[in-house]
Amino acid sequence: MAEASVEILCVGTELLLGNILNGNARWIAERLAALGLPHYRQTVVGDNPQRLAAAVLEAAQRSAVLITTGGLGPTPDDLTTATLASAFNTPLEERSELWLEIQAKLGQGGRPVAASNRRQALLPRGAEVLPNPLGSAPGMIWTPTPGFTVLTFPGVPSEMKAMWAQTADPWLRRHGGTSDVFVSRQLRFSGIGESSLAEQVSDLLEGANPTVAPYASLGDVTLRLTACADDSNQAEALLQPVETELRRRLGRFCYGTDQDSLASVVLRLLRDAGQTLAVAESCTGGALGAAVTAVPGSSQVFLGGVIAYSNAVKEQLLSVPSQVLAEHGAVSDPVVIAMAQGVRQRLGSDWAVAISGVAGPGGGDPEKPVGLVHLAVAGPDGCEAISQRFGDRRGRQAVQQLSVIRALDRLRLRLLSG
Amino acid sequence: MAEASVEILCVGTELLLGNILNGNARWIAERLAALGLPHYRQTVVGDNPQRLAAAVLEAAQRSAVLITTGGLGPTPDDLTTATLASAFNTPLEERSELWLEIQAKLGQGGRPVAASNRRQALLPRGAEVLPNPLGSAPGMIWTPTPGFTVLTFPGVPSEMKAMWAQTADPWLRRHGGTSDVFVSRQLRFSGIGESSLAEQVSDLLEGANPTVAPYASLGDVTLRLTACADDSNQAEALLQPVETELRRRLGRFCYGTDQDSLASVVLRLLRDAGQTLAVAESCTGGALGAAVTAVPGSSQVFLGGVIAYSNAVKEQLLSVPSQVLAEHGAVSDPVVIAMAQGVRQRLGSDWAVAISGVAGPGGGDPEKPVGLVHLAVAGPDGCEAISQRFGDRRGRQAVQQLSVIRALDRLRLRLLSG
Repeated sequence: MAEASVEILCVGTELLLGNILNGNARWIAERLAALGLPHYRQTVVGDNPQRLAAAVLEAAQRSAVLITTGGLGPTPDDLTTATLASAFNTPLEERSELWLEIQAKLGQGGRPVAASNRRQALLPRGAEVLPNPLGSAPGMIWTPTPGFTVLTFPGVPSEMKAMWAQTADPWLRRHGGTSDVFVSRQLRFSGIGESSLAEQVSDLLEGANPTVAPYASLGDVTLRLTACADDSNQAEALLQPVETELRRRLGRFCYGTDQDSLASVVLRLLRDAGQTLAVAESCTGGALGAAVTAVPGSSQVFLGGVIAYSNAVKEQLLSVPSQVLAEHGAVSDPVVIAMAQGVRQRLGSDWAVAISGVAGPGGGDPEKPVGLVHLAVAGPDGCEAISQRFGDRRGRQAVQQLSVIRALDRLRLRLLSG
Repeated sequence: MAEASVEILCVGTELLLGNILNGNARWIAERLAALGLPHYRQTVVGDNPQRLAAAVLEAAQRSAVLITTGGLGPTPDDLTTATLASAFNTPLEERSELWLEIQAKLGQGGRPVAASNRRQALLPRGAEVLPNPLGSAPGMIWTPTPGFTVLTFPGVPSEMKAMWAQTADPWLRRHGGTSDVFVSRQLRFSGIGESSLAEQVSDLLEGANPTVAPYASLGDVTLRLTACADDSNQAEALLQPVETELRRRLGRFCYGTDQDSLASVVLRLLRDAGQTLAVAESCTGGALGAAVTAVPGSSQVFLGGVIAYSNAVKEQLLSVPSQVLAEHGAVSDPVVIAMAQGVRQRLGSDWAVAISGVAGPGGGDPEKPVGLVHLAVAGPDGCEAISQRFGDRRGRQAVQQLSVIRALDRLRLRLLSG
């Protein structure tokens, strides 16, 4: 199946109703990418035999391998095996060894085995069992027509993943056909918009190997580099000069790679310097501390902080002078500077970050509109404040999240320039 | 389009590589279900014009409406609009009003607008603009061939959701075809698992009109009731007795409906009582404060708090006695009680909530394993503490989120029993 591709087909009405996220498709897609298998399409259909059969037959026209999830259970709406058999005009046969195994698994503890579970021992003639080490629903590996193989999995993620590791992963490595290896790297950027970034590297976005593709999420842009070669060393050798050139052009906008977050990068810089951090938060209400402490091991660096939502707390716990609050208002450079210095002194940290802003939807005025946020970073070499306007259209939680991102990025830049 | 169905097509190589979860498909599917629109298929393709065009033309054979997400940005791999135009042999035209709007949006603060953004002003001849109130990427509503309409959205979830609410939702209600009216209500539960809840109301889960469907997310179970009738009054009349019976059986496990969160419910109870709240957080690092302040208007009730991540902060800002820390350890009833009482006194609030636990992955021992969390709620009538074991398999962030949920729910129950 050189050049032939792998599709994913997820079966389940709960996906069409939006009751659950399709975590299975993402997980399998990630594994296919790591195996370097070409994967160009994912489909979701419900527990409906006609539409399921149509989707399978279409996939057979396009692809060499179809991975299905869902519809292998014992209830009447579990239709995947029977529908596949009928789509390819093949009879179902009971595998007596499967039925014995299902009885052994479900009968543990003396529970009676429901007759409906016997359906799970039926497979199309010619299909191999794809064993399920965790649950009662086995899958299959079946080539109903030359050049097209179906691998079926249950929808329960833990069972699907165990079956993948035990049987499907080695099978795909053996049958993957292509000898090409794909290596991907993600470069993560902060402080620059997607279109400005893309313009600065537009020539590199045109490259064929490695490919370079941007995508954006709130306050964050990622470039994904993917190289294809005969082996991983060669793929790395293709990636390396492009990554170097991207980093050269984009400089400190690039904060990390792959699994890095702004918080994990800041924590690493502080840990390497043997320094500590405290926070003082008004409009973010604890979200900056939460972002920092979401990273395992943050207790080596993060001491804590003060959520100074009301002005009384700003005065009392952070020693912000009441006349500064009265003169400049809570959302101002002088106040965030006093907050950062106050928490730094109070907790005895090397660094402190403070945030105060108008998260909205209420509370804005012409001078200090919704979306206006002031940030301060205090460190051993002094304290600086900046303000940002995130606008009033994105909503309260976006303003809070963007404030956290900007604050972490300012701290990162201060730590890098130290 | 009576009986005609709606498909979802998500465009983005990052989905095929498994870099991100397809939250957009889930969100749109949920909205289509709430609108009562038939939805039988979801597809994902990458940033590839041939495969995108093929998927669109296939959908045109099956469905009356196609919803696309992704590929509307300014970069070269944003291909959705141009590919749709070319698939239906229609020229692209620049909409001068769109280009002006994009310049106005992106040019705020005097930043220069990238020439690449001008591509976003191109739409196929005959397409209507689907306005984007948040970002620069507009979508469109286009009927390229009779009986088939495409609605395009960017992949950025906040923009997609704002465009949906403002334009797509009313459009789909007008063009939905069916004269039946669907009314849905979600009842939200905390403190009870999905299977226990389902057992207590199993007879009601069998109903046909209204249907009652459970779904679970981290620490939270929702029942969605959907009634179908000729008009909304009749649908309401069908819903009401079933909702009443569910509430009767499940009592205080039900914390709210529809858009309620535990935090919004707690804030409402406190606001109605004219009372205030403070928090003291160790293992959650600010996430409880963040959950409370994510709710608009929380400043009427929430004063702030202390992120007491290190023991020194617990002693210094919350007056937790050092001998209590030494004797019982930071994760203990006596310490969370002292934290709650300390922050309540310090900030002068009516109520205070404190959390201390072992979020993991490190830091656990046989006596205090990863996942063990102690919570305290202090109020005008005294302080009580409880402990919970969330286990070590769900990961750090799940332990943090579950701690926040349990803490808010304890406070809710205290406020209700007051």
